[in-house]
This record gives sequence, structure tokens and C-alpha cells, in this order.
Amino acid sequence: MPAPQYDVIAIGNAIVDVMAPCSDELIEQLGLNRGGMMLVDAEQADALYAAMGPAREISGGSAANTLAGLAAMGARCAFVGQVADDQLGEVFAHDIRVAGIAFDTPARPGEPPTARCLIFVTPDGQRTMNTFLGASQFLPAERIDEEAIAAAKILYLEGYLWDPEEPRAAMRRAIESARRAGCKVAFTLSDSFVIARHGDDFRALIEDGLIDILFANEAELAALTGQAQLEAGCDALSGKVPLLVVTRSEKGAVACFEGATHRCAAEPVEKVVDTTGAGDLFAAGFLHGHAAGEPIDRCLRRGAIAAAEIISHYGARSEADLPALMARKLG
Amino acid sequence: MPAPQYDVIAIGNAIVDVMAPCSDELIEQLGLNRGGMMLVDAEQADALYAAMGPAREISGGSAANTLAGLAAMGARCAFVGQVADDQLGEVFAHDIRVAGIAFDTPARPGEPPTARCLIFVTPDGQRTMNTFLGASQFLPAERIDEEAIAAAKILYLEGYLWDPEEPRAAMRRAIESARRAGCKVAFTLSDSFVIARHGDDFRALIEDGLIDILFANEAELAALTGQAQLEAGCDALSGKVPLLVVTRSEKGAVACFEGATHRCAAEPVEKVVDTTGAGDLFAAGFLHGHAAGEPIDRCLRRGAIAAAEIISHYGARSEADLPALMARKLG
Repeated sequence: MPAPQYDVIAIGNAIVDVMAPCSDELIEQLGLNRGGMMLVDAEQADALYAAMGPAREISGGSAANTLAGLAAMGARCAFVGQVADDQLGEVFAHDIRVAGIAFDTPARPGEPPTARCLIFVTPDGQRTMNTFLGASQFLPAERIDEEAIAAAKILYLEGYLWDPEEPRAAMRRAIESARRAGCKVAFTLSDSFVIARHGDDFRALIEDGLIDILFANEAELAALTGQAQLEAGCDALSGKVPLLVVTRSEKGAVACFEGATHRCAAEPVEKVVDTTGAGDLFAAGFLHGHAAGEPIDRCLRRGAIAAAEIISHYGARSEADLPALMARKLG
Repeated sequence: MPAPQYDVIAIGNAIVDVMAPCSDELIEQLGLNRGGMMLVDAEQADALYAAMGPAREISGGSAANTLAGLAAMGARCAFVGQVADDQLGEVFAHDIRVAGIAFDTPARPGEPPTARCLIFVTPDGQRTMNTFLGASQFLPAERIDEEAIAAAKILYLEGYLWDPEEPRAAMRRAIESARRAGCKVAFTLSDSFVIARHGDDFRALIEDGLIDILFANEAELAALTGQAQLEAGCDALSGKVPLLVVTRSEKGAVACFEGATHRCAAEPVEKVVDTTGAGDLFAAGFLHGHAAGEPIDRCLRRGAIAAAEIISHYGARSEADLPALMARKLG
């Protein structure tokens, strides 16, 4: 039996988001890095949770959010990520499977529990994330289905997951499988702290020509290239990354492809409720267009529309009918 | 040390709601009782969960929702309910404690897990609930703090919890403590199915003069009294229940108190997103006014305002600043 053919296979953290509104003062009191992502251990997670108001739990995880968006738009997707054998693991697995995404990674028994991200959302809609990686960091390389990757169009990797050792090995193996088979490798840099720790690895992957599509925001691009200016950052990667996509929050996005620079404005939003998942859904919209062979400008527009939807409500999983939204906005 | 003095002590199910939008067709396919509440066993819960789309988890439980509203409006509250020693139990305990509600019932080790309610929300905002009671039905009577009840203004009891044997015994003990001490007993009938099973118990409590404040919706009032018409239902209880509050969804609410009938229109809502918790928050608003000695008409208005807030978003825990909302609406 041939391996199922996916548009996108993603490897990422299997996380449930625990989200609550909070005041700007609380962010200060807790000494959190406003708008950023911080890794926390079990003890820190407990202390932060105790300081958090009444919360809601919604499945998250950067690459998983991207896949959920892609699947909602009709792409055939598979996810690889490690949950524990517990209630939050069941929640994550349920939410991703009923989104129509293949997810076969068996739950890991015992401690640590399933990853969770404590997300404090300030009145301006900005999210400050505190991630307890839990089981997510123990994804073994054996979970990589090389045949499925070989048959896929795009392998999508989450930079966050480069931090722990086992998933890093798993992603390296996946990249090799993809390169051998001609499956494109897309990588999202995720956060500046990851680049601070693993920038050399990322630069080596890029120099070796292993990354076909790179997603970054402006801060990540600067951290990776050492260039503070957007243009200089893009130039530093030109000729090394065939397709570079840089998201710029309310300033829109830029893509560098085949020697040309494409720009796209942000999609207007009535009220920014929660920015969690903005980059993830931008990637979803962009990749959906790109996998279908659409022109870059249209891929950017799709990204901007999907990102605007996600920041208009709590949580990083779309609540709108994305295909209908795209049809309405793109005409 | 004297027992802490609470405005309201509630005994109820300790439940986490698992909520997802769904089509009207799915409700039919699954054979669910649209708009109602159904008890399900573990196997049925698994099957329904598998049929449910991507969901979000938000703490719920009827009486707990009422307390969360009361606490948000400044009332001093305590909750008694049974969670299991698991992740959903931690979620429930966290959410109720950070809402400012005293909650000391120790988690129950082992199986069954914490109660959850699978809530399907149709496009009209109507919720269809399927409750797996889990640990919630094993609340032992020893958990009742008779001193705290004796010092409280109001003991609030959830009819749903009359179904399982242990909590029923706990509530009977709590009622006795309250009566002895002059603490008012408020009871919400919760759902017609509870009345179908335990109507005789409820009628006996009422005949014995043990209920000071009774909350019901129209269907529950009819099931309890055997009178299909609202007026006849109210008449049937007159002289037996000092204060009767009947909620009527978009038709508003009625209260019968000291021989007079008070009516209140529903508060207009821009869009009904999810009706989960409408009755619970009506009770919260009403009781908040009543505990402060306000006139019945103003208590009804408070109930209508709190109910309108809760149905304008997902979940049965308020997202608005309730005191500010009340101040704005009541002047």
C-alpha cells in the first residue's frame, strides 16, 4: 500500500494553550517578557498558573495551529508531535484529529505531562507566552515516517522544537528524508530566543541549502542575520533561501522569491483580541496558496487574511469558515 | 476562630465544559435532545467527543457558574464540589479559586475522572449538553462545613446534583444546617429530567418549608407543578415557597414574592452566541441584589443583565467587568 500523500507534514510541539486576559500591571509584577515566549519548568508553570485569572484551554502549538488552518482550507495534512497519556494529551489529539489532520504519534506514558502554554493576553490583544514543554520535548526520531515525508509536498518544521534534543534529531532525520525525495522543507524560526541558542544550527541548515521556505518575523530575521534593517536582513539570505517570508505584524509582510521582493499590507481588523497564532495562521494561508502554485502576492494575501481572522478572537485555531472567508476577500 | 462569613455557599457539580460549535444536522444525527441536558456514561462521552469538532475547555457547573458571577460582583462565596485528582480537576479548582471563591473540597484520587460536559452549540447559540458526572457524583456528606453554612446568608443548591446518592445526602445535611441557623436555602431545579426522577423529593422539600428561594425555568416549573401555564404553576407554589423566580429565556423572567408577581423583560443581546449558563448567571445577578436587600424588580434586572452578558460569548463564566456593566445598565 502506498504511503498517503499529504500536502503538508508538520513536526511541532503538541501543546494545549491555557489562556486568560490579564492587566499590563500583572505582566510587570510577574516580570514577564511582554509579547515574547519563555520556557518554564513545572514549578514556574505552577506559580504562573496560580497568578493567572480564570482561563480557557484551547489546543495550540505553532506548527499544529498552522496545520489546523491548512486543513480547514482543504489541504491534506499530517502532524507529528508528542503528547503524554493524560487528559490534556487527549484534548490535543482530539482537536487535531477532528480538524481532519492525520496524527499517529502514540501518547507517551508517565511523566512529564502534556505540554501547556500559559498565555497572558493584555488589553491590547498582545499575548505573552510561558511554555512548559513537558512530553513535547521527548519526540523520538523513530516517530518520523520517512515514506510519508517522501510522498508529501511540503515538510513544515517549527523552530521552537529545535531546542530539545530528541525532537531536533527527529527533525534532522525528517529534513534528510525530504531532501532525498524532493519534498520542500519549510521552516519557521518561531522566536528570537531559539535563534539565540540555535542560530548556528539554523545558519548551517540555510548555508547547506536544506531550507526551501523560511518564515520569520522581523526580530527573528534580525537575530538570524545580524542585520537590524529588514532589507539588509533579506539581502543576507538572498540566494540561500529560495523563498523567504517575513511577517511584520500591523505593517504586513514581505516575501523574497526569485530575486523579487513582494509586499503585502496587513488585513484590517476591527479589534485585536488576542494575537496568539498570528504568525502560525499567516504561514497557513501562505502555504495553502503556495502548495497550489499561486503567485506570491496572492499567497501573501492569503496569509494576511488568515492572520487577521485569528487575532480577532481568543485562541490560535480558526473560528471562521476559512475557505468562505478567502473566497469573499480574494474574490 | 469563627467560621468565615460568606454571602453564598453553593454545593454543585464540579465540571469542566468542553464546547464546540456544531450544525443542526449533527444534533439530529447524534440523536441529541436539542437544548437539553443528558447524562452520559464514559463510553457515550467518548463517542460524542469523537463526533465533536475542535473544542475549547472552560470551567462550568451550574452552581459554580452562579458563584463565579456572584464573586465577580463582589459577593463572598464558597463552593463545595468534587473533582478528581487529574488535570481537568486542576483546571476547575484553579478557575474557581482565582475567581475569589473559597474551594476546599479535596480532590478525589483514582477513577472516575473529573466531570465534563460536552456542549454542542448550534448556529442559533442554543446549547445541547451531555454530562459525564465522573468524580462529581461522589461528593461525601462529610465535606459539608456546617459551621460555615450556619454563618452564611444563603445556601445555594443545584438540582442536577440531586441525582447521585452521595451528594444528595450531602445536600440534605446542608439544608438541615442552614435551617437550624437561619441561613436561607436557595434551590435551582436545573433541568426537567431531574424533576422527572426526583420531583417527589423536591415537592416534599417545598411542602416541608425547607426552600426559601426557588429558581426554575418554565419547563421545570411545569414539570414540578403539573401546571402547563406559567400563572397556574406560580399559583401552585404560592404560600409554599417565599420567593419563586422563573426564567423565560427571551421572554424575560417572573418573580413571585410576598403575594405580588414581578415581571422583567429580557435584556437585549446583539447576537446570541452560546446560551450556556444563562440561567446560572440570571441566578447570580438576582441573588447578588437579593443578598443586599434590594427590591425584587431590581434583582430581576440584575439577573437579566448578567444573563445577557453570558449568552453573548462562549462559556458560562463571565468575560465582562460585571460590576461596571451593572453600574452602566442600572444607572
